[in-house]
Amino acid sequence: MTVASLRSKDLVGIEPLSPDEITLLLDTAESMRAIGQRPIKKVPALRGRMVVNLFFEASTRTRFSFETAEKWLSADSLNFAAKGSSVEKGESLLDTAKNLQAMSPDLIVIRHGSPGVPHFLARHLKAGVVNAGDGAHEHPTQALLDALTIRQRLGRLDGLKVSIVGDIAHSRVVRSNIWLLKKMGARVVVCGPPTLLPPRIEEMGVEATTDFDHALDGADVVMMLRMQLERQGKSLFPSVREYFRHYGLDAKRLAKAKPQAIVMHPGPMNRGVEIASDVADSGRSVILDQVSNGVAVRMAVLYLLLGGHPWEGES
Amino acid sequence: MTVASLRSKDLVGIEPLSPDEITLLLDTAESMRAIGQRPIKKVPALRGRMVVNLFFEASTRTRFSFETAEKWLSADSLNFAAKGSSVEKGESLLDTAKNLQAMSPDLIVIRHGSPGVPHFLARHLKAGVVNAGDGAHEHPTQALLDALTIRQRLGRLDGLKVSIVGDIAHSRVVRSNIWLLKKMGARVVVCGPPTLLPPRIEEMGVEATTDFDHALDGADVVMMLRMQLERQGKSLFPSVREYFRHYGLDAKRLAKAKPQAIVMHPGPMNRGVEIASDVADSGRSVILDQVSNGVAVRMAVLYLLLGGHPWEGES
Amino acid sequence: MTVASLRSKDLVGIEPLSPDEITLLLDTAESMRAIGQRPIKKVPALRGRMVVNLFFEASTRTRFSFETAEKWLSADSLNFAAKGSSVEKGESLLDTAKNLQAMSPDLIVIRHGSPGVPHFLARHLKAGVVNAGDGAHEHPTQALLDALTIRQRLGRLDGLKVSIVGDIAHSRVVRSNIWLLKKMGARVVVCGPPTLLPPRIEEMGVEATTDFDHALDGADVVMMLRMQLERQGKSLFPSVREYFRHYGLDAKRLAKAKPQAIVMHPGPMNRGVEIASDVADSGRSVILDQVSNGVAVRMAVLYLLLGGHPWEGES
Repeated sequence: MTVASLRSKDLVGIEPLSPDEITLLLDTAESMRAIGQRPIKKVPALRGRMVVNLFFEASTRTRFSFETAEKWLSADSLNFAAKGSSVEKGESLLDTAKNLQAMSPDLIVIRHGSPGVPHFLARHLKAGVVNAGDGAHEHPTQALLDALTIRQRLGRLDGLKVSIVGDIAHSRVVRSNIWLLKKMGARVVVCGPPTLLPPRIEEMGVEATTDFDHALDGADVVMMLRMQLERQGKSLFPSVREYFRHYGLDAKRLAKAKPQAIVMHPGPMNRGVEIASDVADSGRSVILDQVSNGVAVRMAVLYLLLGGHPWEGES
Repeated sequence: MTVASLRSKDLVGIEPLSPDEITLLLDTAESMRAIGQRPIKKVPALRGRMVVNLFFEASTRTRFSFETAEKWLSADSLNFAAKGSSVEKGESLLDTAKNLQAMSPDLIVIRHGSPGVPHFLARHLKAGVVNAGDGAHEHPTQALLDALTIRQRLGRLDGLKVSIVGDIAHSRVVRSNIWLLKKMGARVVVCGPPTLLPPRIEEMGVEATTDFDHALDGADVVMMLRMQLERQGKSLFPSVREYFRHYGLDAKRLAKAKPQAIVMHPGPMNRGVEIASDVADSGRSVILDQVSNGVAVRMAVLYLLLGGHPWEGES
Repeated sequence: MTVASLRSKDLVGIEPLSPDEITLLLDTAESMRAIGQRPIKKVPALRGRMVVNLFFEASTRTRFSFETAEKWLSADSLNFAAKGSSVEKGESLLDTAKNLQAMSPDLIVIRHGSPGVPHFLARHLKAGVVNAGDGAHEHPTQALLDALTIRQRLGRLDGLKVSIVGDIAHSRVVRSNIWLLKKMGARVVVCGPPTLLPPRIEEMGVEATTDFDHALDGADVVMMLRMQLERQGKSLFPSVREYFRHYGLDAKRLAKAKPQAIVMHPGPMNRGVEIASDVADSGRSVILDQVSNGVAVRMAVLYLLLGGHPWEGES
């Protein structure tokens, strides 16, 4: 590792991280993975530290992943779901933050529908803040777990062609992945129907295309995004069947990517919409590795933000 | 004990258990009871083990009972309620299961409205699965706690006459109890109005009757079921008053059972519907013992599934 | 300290406490504060003790405060929210209580919309009961944290003039504060529009006035209450603007109190309704101290009810 700690008390996004910090996070996550393979998955690293999980949007898998990471590191957790909170009583976000701070938590994990909320909290809290997804903006731990998974399977990030396919416009996963992959030397192609490609996305240093075959050609990694079927009412694409015909990944289509190309998906999958089962359940799919790596990445994030030095294993 | 461990990694129902396994579970629960009587109710038996409580149906008492058992054994718990889960996002149950498995939990406790869901998860997960109620199918820990309670009060299960009264057709409690009691040598009578007696219930080896007095005659155990008042709209019986007149248990009626007969109810009770307070609060009632024994039984289940050998007390 | 322990197993309100008991609670809370200032905020004082948090009304901040206190003291917590409970299945409160007791919790923290529910539980449970707010009746830990905050800033309670302003009629905070402050020798003035002053409030030993300036005159402590805007439909006062003009606290108005007077609010604040930001965010405001002290007070309550002797620090 070329750096020994993160510069910030917070992980609000991938954008502010240096390549060295990303490498430190991935290397730490790599060593955290070993804990998950033991019969007793518990180290005392964060004993007595309090992590508050504030989920203003429902998310079972991300919340479980963070909570599992917290428990494996022996941290204490407080859980909060949006309903029935003082937020509904009209308190300002800043007042909510200050009140939380007054109870002296060590770290706040926050998912919120509005972009920038984690940054706002980070500026006003002494506690560390981890962005678990803010609107369509960033989802940094997702990008880190994706990178960890790619690195495990393909040995590197540098020089790879990564194609991200689907609803590019509304995805925080895409945005964090673009930041990370570009910083680490990968080439990123984003692909989707014209209505789901944001206008000036090329300014992020990626190639944008509506041609799925072009995106697949020579790809090392094919990352399929979840189609938000609940947005379909807005007529961003004609029908599910039509969508799958143009942008759904099946085994035949995957043959256009490199022979060793891997298939990723942040989940939950819509089988038959953006991805066919013959691909999702194949040896090329690393979708469940992504989930496992999610716990390791979140352990690394919690550990580095609260511990501050590289993990050496238990002493 | 005649066996030293359970054969399966799962407890999906009573039906697959052998009498020896049931005895092992009850004997282990018996020794777990001692933990609940100490001022500090905590043993390190399952430290570092992760139990996920997945409740797709609301249930405060069963969830509390499992969570209490987990904490007394020092396990970590993740809690999930149906609302706001990826289930609502249309993910298949199998994908949900695989995703859960990717986070490496040790045990899944699941309550679900559809029969067979725990069995399905058990087949697809490396983690152990405990059925906390699946539709009208099984509720094995309830039957075990009932058996533990009977054994404590009456010294045995073998040869007893156990009468189960009420909504037999829609009850998972009945089904698990019939399996268990038959395996352990008891004689089971089920009783209720014709509309609430399932057609071929005798094939389970029980006697079915619509005559409450006949069911009570010579009974050692009278187990009253909760009347699902929310089903009343379906006109399965004319009225609450009418129901109580025919199938409600009061002290006068209980006199028809054996003098030392005990009264059970899985809770929550509808006083004045299926049971009168003069019985519910009498010395014949073991309803609160059932609740206490629930924690001990769940400790035994968790311990045997995760630990694999009989509890010897703390070393 | 003049007493070494609380007489009751419960804290159902301030009304039954003696001044010595209040002093014991505040002194214990004072020493608990030190734990919150360490990097590792955890002492083993209540290890293996089970606290059940029963919140029949939503409250993020009070629940977080209790849960934080429980975790810092190493207690186990079970959490319950009203929705989806057996309460909805029509079980009586007494049956719910007895069922809970059968699982042998050590302490029940309860918030409920109906006055007297904690007292009812306290009478029927072996477990200790802490009232976390019962209707418009009492909220004893709020009054204790308010007292702790006043004592810290002003050195004493005895002889102070404390003015409580706003919706006096519907506030459990007021009631508990009046009991506590009167017992400890303070002079209490309650102030609000006539529709929000309960008829015979003077019988509690306080002065009641509709004149805000009179209430402020010579006050050492100005405690502003949250205006329940959701009650506005009932026309208890004409408009928010009108309300602020008569009973809102801003810096100009605060000048009428003593120069060193402090400003309190139980939160969440409605800025611009009952309090202006120039006051809420000033050095005179102790609103965030109240939140911090809330954790210390709840630790003291849990510790004294479960431990029974004064905290001497860790041995």
